[in-house]
Amino acid sequence: MDTQALNFWLNNLAVIAFAITAVLAVNEKDDIDIFAVVVLGSITAVGGGTLRDLIVGVPVFWLPDAIDIRLAVLASACVFIARPFFRSAKVYVLMLYLDALGAALFAIQGTIKIWGLGLTIPILPLVFGVMSAIGGGIIRDVLVGRKTLLMSSELYIIPVLLGCASMVAIFKFFPEHILAGEILCSAQIFIFRACAIHWNLSVPNFMVLRSKK
Amino acid sequence: MDTQALNFWLNNLAVIAFAITAVLAVNEKDDIDIFAVVVLGSITAVGGGTLRDLIVGVPVFWLPDAIDIRLAVLASACVFIARPFFRSAKVYVLMLYLDALGAALFAIQGTIKIWGLGLTIPILPLVFGVMSAIGGGIIRDVLVGRKTLLMSSELYIIPVLLGCASMVAIFKFFPEHILAGEILCSAQIFIFRACAIHWNLSVPNFMVLRSKK
Amino acid sequence: MDTQALNFWLNNLAVIAFAITAVLAVNEKDDIDIFAVVVLGSITAVGGGTLRDLIVGVPVFWLPDAIDIRLAVLASACVFIARPFFRSAKVYVLMLYLDALGAALFAIQGTIKIWGLGLTIPILPLVFGVMSAIGGGIIRDVLVGRKTLLMSSELYIIPVLLGCASMVAIFKFFPEHILAGEILCSAQIFIFRACAIHWNLSVPNFMVLRSKK
Repeated sequence: MDTQALNFWLNNLAVIAFAITAVLAVNEKDDIDIFAVVVLGSITAVGGGTLRDLIVGVPVFWLPDAIDIRLAVLASACVFIARPFFRSAKVYVLMLYLDALGAALFAIQGTIKIWGLGLTIPILPLVFGVMSAIGGGIIRDVLVGRKTLLMSSELYIIPVLLGCASMVAIFKFFPEHILAGEILCSAQIFIFRACAIHWNLSVPNFMVLRSKK
Repeated sequence: MDTQALNFWLNNLAVIAFAITAVLAVNEKDDIDIFAVVVLGSITAVGGGTLRDLIVGVPVFWLPDAIDIRLAVLASACVFIARPFFRSAKVYVLMLYLDALGAALFAIQGTIKIWGLGLTIPILPLVFGVMSAIGGGIIRDVLVGRKTLLMSSELYIIPVLLGCASMVAIFKFFPEHILAGEILCSAQIFIFRACAIHWNLSVPNFMVLRSKK
Repeated sequence: MDTQALNFWLNNLAVIAFAITAVLAVNEKDDIDIFAVVVLGSITAVGGGTLRDLIVGVPVFWLPDAIDIRLAVLASACVFIARPFFRSAKVYVLMLYLDALGAALFAIQGTIKIWGLGLTIPILPLVFGVMSAIGGGIIRDVLVGRKTLLMSSELYIIPVLLGCASMVAIFKFFPEHILAGEILCSAQIFIFRACAIHWNLSVPNFMVLRSKK
């Protein structure tokens, strides 16, 4: 399998993973309809990448063939139809891991895209890698009126940031191993984030701005 | 009257309608000044279309001659000056119909614009038609801290979606009747939405993700 | 010192000022980590200008050399590290003045950029001047779940708007004094806003949409 085919399937997987997790964001007190679920699922799935593409000034990734947006709409609609299944606590935890997978894939793909555009000042692949991973979820949380990821001390941005930094290092020092690097760095983010979910880790205290209690 | 002139006037009407309805979004507990009313009115009026134009990568529609933004600023300022008039319950209901009119016009014009850009995979005119109609109002609601349209079971997205679908069908099967189609599909959205307002209809139960009570 | 060098340093000053003030936005009840502080600081610093550049369709200002984003990240990280310093009431007031300085510089620089792009219909430099000044702060407030500037009767938009209008007047009537105009109009905004902070002025009553009490 070549890089392009791999990217195609990993991207589809990430879109579906994120679209499905939109259901996580729905507050227990709200009644939302299937169209809102589809809109929120799609925004979660393509929002971060859309923002990235707009800012760097390249065509938005899901436009030409509309594959990603169709996948996102379909996946969200399926989640709505199969909603009783998503109610159990076990599935909720599964969703967290799926979200970690989506974040890992989008972060590394974003980093690769930015590097490929010649934006190689190291801060730029990091900024846009993180944006690709968390942008969609943040827009979704704003739209549903939830606290965004930024306002929690969940261990989320650190794994993403470290993974993107590893990818930048691979571009700099092992430019002949991009494909292996892509898989390894995505795995790095996923595993680190999965550990954070499993052991309920949060950001170390010295990195948190505690409010006066 | 030719299509272009019709579009020009319908667009102006929609901008004014949406700018006026921004006053609806102001929470009773808040004190907002004339400048905030103008900013919110303008965002409601041009926000959805701006987002659409940015994502598809065409020049933002209100830029070259600034007509739409001037109309929106003027209409919002008038609403501020005539604010006692907008306090009665009767006018409030009138505003709802005005909002339905704005949504109907923007949805169909958005659909037509997207189709004209060659984005004819059916899901794209639908996505951007809905975005044109509800985008501005959603940004406004986020800015004022109100629950957005997505978090209610109001019957709003369905009429818009069906109207856009009708317009896509006209492009596909009756490409010689675009002008008539534009009027009919706008009317379809407006009438369906007006019925929803009048009889206080909401999204059918089987389409709503009820929370555990 | 020529105009370009002056603009370069004034812009850097504004970016740092805004990045620092992001710490103001953090609600006392929230615990946010260093990465969230950096994200919020950067968005406050470059958000308004990014939105402006996207809408007018020019390359986003911080992209090519990434200077602004590096400054913003660095300044935000410093604020996080020196956070005990930012807890005192005196420093809080200093932050308000710093924020006024950032708004003044960004507003006038935004106005100048828009005029330079040939968008000389007077409403456009005003719209984008105000957007450059308040856009970043509004996005930040939405992300942290705070009431945005628009929902208060703080005297903020009026000074910015008047300063941008002065700058437009200078372009129209004294096009040979752009540099002096830039300094004077920035000073005008800063002084007016500083007075508002010092004497705790708010928008005059006749300009405020009071809610029913």
